[in-house]
Order: sequence, then structure tokens, then C-alpha cells
Amino acid sequence: MKINTNFEKMPQNYLFAEVGKRTSDYVKANPGKKVLRMGIGDVSGPLAPVVVEAMQKAAAELGQKQGFRGYPPYEGYDFLREAIAAYYATLGVRTDPSEVYVNDGAKSDAGNFGDIFDVDNAVLMPDPVYPVYLDSNLMSGRRILYMNGSEENGFLPLPDPSVRADIIYLCSPNNPTGAVYTREGLKAWVDYANDQGAVILYDAAYEAFISDPALPRSIFSIEGARTCAVEMCSMSKTAGFTGVRCGYTIIPKELSRGGQSIGALWLRRQATKFNGVSYPVQRGAEAAFGKEGYAQCMEAIAFYKENAAIMGKAIGSFTKYFGGSQSPYIWLKCPNGLKSWAYFDYLLNDLQIVGTPGAGFGKMGEGYLRLTAFGEREAVLEAMERIQKAPF
Amino acid sequence: MKINTNFEKMPQNYLFAEVGKRTSDYVKANPGKKVLRMGIGDVSGPLAPVVVEAMQKAAAELGQKQGFRGYPPYEGYDFLREAIAAYYATLGVRTDPSEVYVNDGAKSDAGNFGDIFDVDNAVLMPDPVYPVYLDSNLMSGRRILYMNGSEENGFLPLPDPSVRADIIYLCSPNNPTGAVYTREGLKAWVDYANDQGAVILYDAAYEAFISDPALPRSIFSIEGARTCAVEMCSMSKTAGFTGVRCGYTIIPKELSRGGQSIGALWLRRQATKFNGVSYPVQRGAEAAFGKEGYAQCMEAIAFYKENAAIMGKAIGSFTKYFGGSQSPYIWLKCPNGLKSWAYFDYLLNDLQIVGTPGAGFGKMGEGYLRLTAFGEREAVLEAMERIQKAPF
Repeated sequence: MKINTNFEKMPQNYLFAEVGKRTSDYVKANPGKKVLRMGIGDVSGPLAPVVVEAMQKAAAELGQKQGFRGYPPYEGYDFLREAIAAYYATLGVRTDPSEVYVNDGAKSDAGNFGDIFDVDNAVLMPDPVYPVYLDSNLMSGRRILYMNGSEENGFLPLPDPSVRADIIYLCSPNNPTGAVYTREGLKAWVDYANDQGAVILYDAAYEAFISDPALPRSIFSIEGARTCAVEMCSMSKTAGFTGVRCGYTIIPKELSRGGQSIGALWLRRQATKFNGVSYPVQRGAEAAFGKEGYAQCMEAIAFYKENAAIMGKAIGSFTKYFGGSQSPYIWLKCPNGLKSWAYFDYLLNDLQIVGTPGAGFGKMGEGYLRLTAFGEREAVLEAMERIQKAPF
Repeated sequence: MKINTNFEKMPQNYLFAEVGKRTSDYVKANPGKKVLRMGIGDVSGPLAPVVVEAMQKAAAELGQKQGFRGYPPYEGYDFLREAIAAYYATLGVRTDPSEVYVNDGAKSDAGNFGDIFDVDNAVLMPDPVYPVYLDSNLMSGRRILYMNGSEENGFLPLPDPSVRADIIYLCSPNNPTGAVYTREGLKAWVDYANDQGAVILYDAAYEAFISDPALPRSIFSIEGARTCAVEMCSMSKTAGFTGVRCGYTIIPKELSRGGQSIGALWLRRQATKFNGVSYPVQRGAEAAFGKEGYAQCMEAIAFYKENAAIMGKAIGSFTKYFGGSQSPYIWLKCPNGLKSWAYFDYLLNDLQIVGTPGAGFGKMGEGYLRLTAFGEREAVLEAMERIQKAPF
């Protein structure tokens, strides 16, 4: 029996598991201290009332012989696929409900999508980057190519035509940097992917934070994307679903490689290794996309964006930062030339603030730290007060 | 860009997707006919009242700032891990809550567990077999070895010491045959696996149907299993959770290969490609394992077992069958020497009964058909009346 030795190529701990461990170790050793968590991008809730009602009603249905439902469709119930397609229409993007694949969170699909591609493909991803793209591809033994994000390109690298890539990960608004591609930037990627026959896996988890109408909220608002892109989106941030677990992936009908439909391959994968999303969860998700539900969700997003504005003002007073205005993330340059984990430890031990070290997102993240705007207002204000009063 | 050509080794459609398609095609073409579904092993519900209440209460918590919870732990909440360990104690099996990994259904873990093993391992599985074991390993490009189930061995193959295997799938009570390993049978497998350094992936999804105290309900009731086995179990059948989505995998602390803890490898995989199970679902699962909840679930199991007894009596009057008494499956020999899909089509077109063709579970399943006992009583009685009245 041989274990998968590709696991040895991954960092021992998933980044957020390591952040969580250091935090809980600190809390155990210092029970009296009030720790302010701005590390993991988790929302502070609560769920919109119509979402709760929909989930409760669905649970009640399952308790009645008449309303009982068993295995859900692998790709999601039609009622939710239609609600998601209707939501895309409000963004000015045409997608058919049959192109919507419902999942238990975008991380699952981001991690598992590689199953349908050969191991022998070159994977291009930004550095810094959400660790799931990297770790899941290291785990499968794929060759990784990086495109460097930096202050010079605003952490929004553009394609280099001399680089040959098969699978391309993009995330906009970016996790961790909060940077958002313009339409021109995305168009360059779409043209590059179509030229190369590559597939873009586009992570739109934070699209709901974009309020600037000039910025694209879906890659499918870019001409040519339907022949080269898959879009993954999460309800974690849009609707506070981190604990509810629901997301979706859009695979255009036109998208095929090697003569095979990507959507059909993915459905075959899901039929084998997945059994659909919980019915009450899907009803909750449907409610979140309804008129009333979406308005309630947008209130929460507006609140988080105010947090981000407060944080940006405070942090901008002593160091450079990216993100914030069209995303829930503040990507700040560690003061005094500190390295990421050193600044993380300083914030935790001296100020009792939990961030996420930029170096955990890739070598280009060294010297940066990510803070999230998902906290409660009081905690955000207190954290910013602590950080501004601190010696550095 | 190369797609994963291993997909071509799999049948085009997942078995149950094909059964579903033929059924819905028939229903569309014959809208007036009453079709009785005994194909996919889906329960007819409803959920136990305490489970519904627990899910509703949890949804309400998420709607309150105080009770809100975000990302669940990758491995499940302690409250549920403890409830599952306590349930194992009632089966006479010691397991620590830290050995319990909660998932969104046993199929996900059965399909994904291979991620932690090298592609270059020999996989041994019974034929006939639940298609997920086979398809997920074909998809990864692994070498498959079969052990034949037949009338001679009661569809319970025993190890052949001359065969070298690294990963072994066992399912007891078996899907599709309903056959249940004795303690001696499982002991032979445990000894073989320990000798070979192999790992047994033991699917106990139907353990709650075992009422004969002489038969093992967990592989961990067999001495030596903690150094060679992982047990996967589902709440789909135990608690009618097919639409709710929750299961669990037990990985003993003692289990390691290549110097690495299997539990740690699995957690690393889950941290990368999974984000935990919905909080209301986990509260529902906890309730199902409570005293009142379990009693309510056992009423449903007793009802399905009565169905199986009714079916066994009717089917035994005209052909040979396996399973039934300690499982929800009746595995019957197609009458008149018919092949599996021919009998499937006959049952669908002439009697409007949906079964699952045995050939879909492997070459040794040819000439058999699986019926499930999860239907409503009226439908079971009507199906048995139709089948007994039929010319063959």
C-alpha cells in the first residue's frame, strides 16, 4: 500500500487550519484576553429571515409523508438552478438553468474540478492565491506555473503569451488581495485562454461586493468567455452561508475540450462522488435569491463594506494597502518591513488581533497580511483602535 | 489541455442515472401508467419528528446574531462526533469521537477517499458491487481486481491469499445482494489485510438493518480491524437522510501506512477540498442518534424490513433470491434465464415496476435484478401482486 506522496508537497497544515491552531493555542494560554478575529474570511451573520423561514419550511416538508423528498438531483433542484440563472440575468449575463451546477460550497468544486482533467496539464495560478487552488493541484501531482502579483501590477497579473498553460485559476475580487480585474483585464485572459485552448476556472465568490458598475461581476459578461471559462461562486459571502453550505458552478454548454463537453464530464464526476445538496439548504438558497431575500443579503454586504471602509481609513494612516472598496479583504503591507508570520504573531500576542499571514498565500505574499471585514462593528472599531495606538 | 481519459473507462452513465433516464422516458411516453419504483435505494420517509425539530431550531439559531455559526469544522461538530461515538458504544464498539469524520453522505467519502492513496495501488472489490467503488477508482486510473460473488459463496467472497491487494472494498450488508458477512468471514478479511498491509474500506451503510445479534454491525467489532480498516456509514438509510445529506467515516488512531496516520491524511484532504457539513443538518443528525430520535428511526427500519419480508415471500414463490431479512435489498435471479436489462425492461414496460439490473453492478450480476424495500406498503403490495400474476 502506497499513500499519495504528493501530500508531502503540500504545506503540512492547510493555512487556515494553522491560523486557527495558533489562535486557539493563544486563547487557551491567555483565557482572560479578548481576541478579535479578522483571519478566516467567515461572516458574522445572521442569516436573512426569509432564508431561515424557507429552511424551516423545507425541514417540515421532509417530516411529512406528502412533502418528503429523497436523493436530490446531483446538479441541484430545478427551482434553485432557475433562481440562480435569474440572478445572473440581473447582472446582465445570460445563462441557462441547465448550465448551473449546485454544490455544497465553492471550495468543494474548486478542489474537485481537477478530477475531470488529466494530471499532465500545466496549471497557471496567481501568486498570492487562495490555497485551495494550489493544494488541490499539488495533491494530484500537477505542474504549477505562477504569475506574480505585486504592487507594480496591483496584484492583477495579465497573461504572458510566451507561457503555455492548460488550466488557469483567476479570482476576482481576489482572495487574498481584494484586487478586482477590469473588463479589459479579463478580456485579455479570455483571449489568451481561447488562443491556447486552456480552461479558466474563475472564482467569483466575492462578486456581490462589487458596486462599481464599470467592474465585471461575472467572467461571462466578457465576450468569448463561454468557450473557455467555468465560473464558481459561493453563497458563503453573498448570503452568509458559511455554516449552511451552498454554492454553484456555471459551465456553459459551448465549453468542450478533446471533443467532450466539460459540463457532461463534471456531471459524470458528481454522479460518482457526490449525492447532491441538502433539500432544506437548497430551499434556503432559493429564498436568498428571491427579491426580499436578496435585499436582506445586500444589507449584510453593505454593512461589511462599511467595515472595510473603516478599516481602510485606519490602516491607510500607517501603511499601504490594497482591496477594501470592492471586496471584503484588506491586503496590507506589514509595517517596519516585518515578515508575514512575524506580524501575524505580533498582532495576535500583543494586540490580540487575528489576521492571515500573506506568506501563507504564496511567496509573493511575504511581507503582507490579510484582514477581513466580516466582523461585528464593535470588534472592527476596537481592532482599528488597538492597531492605530500600537507602536507599529 | 487534456481531459482525464480515464473517464472513458467508465460506463457512459452512472448506473442509477441510466435507470432514472429509462424510467422517466417511459413515464413521459405513458403518462397514464402507475409506475412503482423499487430501483434506486431511496427511502420514502418521512423524517423523524425530533430530527425536523432539531433542524428547524438550528436554522432559527443561524437567524439570530447570538446563535449564528459560520464555517463548521472540516471533521464535524464535537456534539455530533460524540453522539456517533456513543451510538457505536451501544453496538459494543469502542471508538473515540476524534476518530469520527462527519460528511455530507457516505458516497462522497467512498468516492473521494482514494485521494489519499497513490494511483499505483491494486484495488480489490467484490463483483457485483456498488458502482461508486469501481467508477471512482477507474476515474483515477487504478488497477482493479475483482473477487467474484456467486450463488456458491452466497455472494460473500473470502480472501484468496495468493492475490496481492492494497485497497479492499467490502460492503455488508451488501449492496446490491443483501448478503451479510459473518464474524468469521470478516475476521478472515481483517487477517488478510493485516498480513498484506492493505487497507479495508468498509461500507456499513445498511448496518441498522441487521437484527440478528450473531452478525457484526461494524468491522470494528472484529479483533485486529483497528490496524487495517476504515468504516464508512450513512444516515441515508438509518435515519431517512437521503435528502438531508449526512454520513460519517470512522478512522482508528492506530491506522497508519507508510509511517503516516490515515486520519491525518484524510483531514488534510478534507481541509483542502471540503468545508464541513451544514449546521442544521448536523443538529438533525445528532437528534437522530438521541434516544427518542433513534427509536423513531428504528420504527422506519422495522417498516422497511416488513416490506422486505413481504417481497421475499412473493418473490421466493417463483424464483431464487438473496438478502431481504437483514438488509433492505432483494437480489433475485431473473426468471426464465432472462438477462438483467431484459428483465428490467420487461418489468418497466409490462408491469410498470422499476428495479435495478444486476448487470449494472458487475459481470457477476448478469442474470440478477435488485429490488429495494424502501417503498410505501401499498406500492410494495401492488408490485408483488403484479409480479406474481405476471406470466413470468
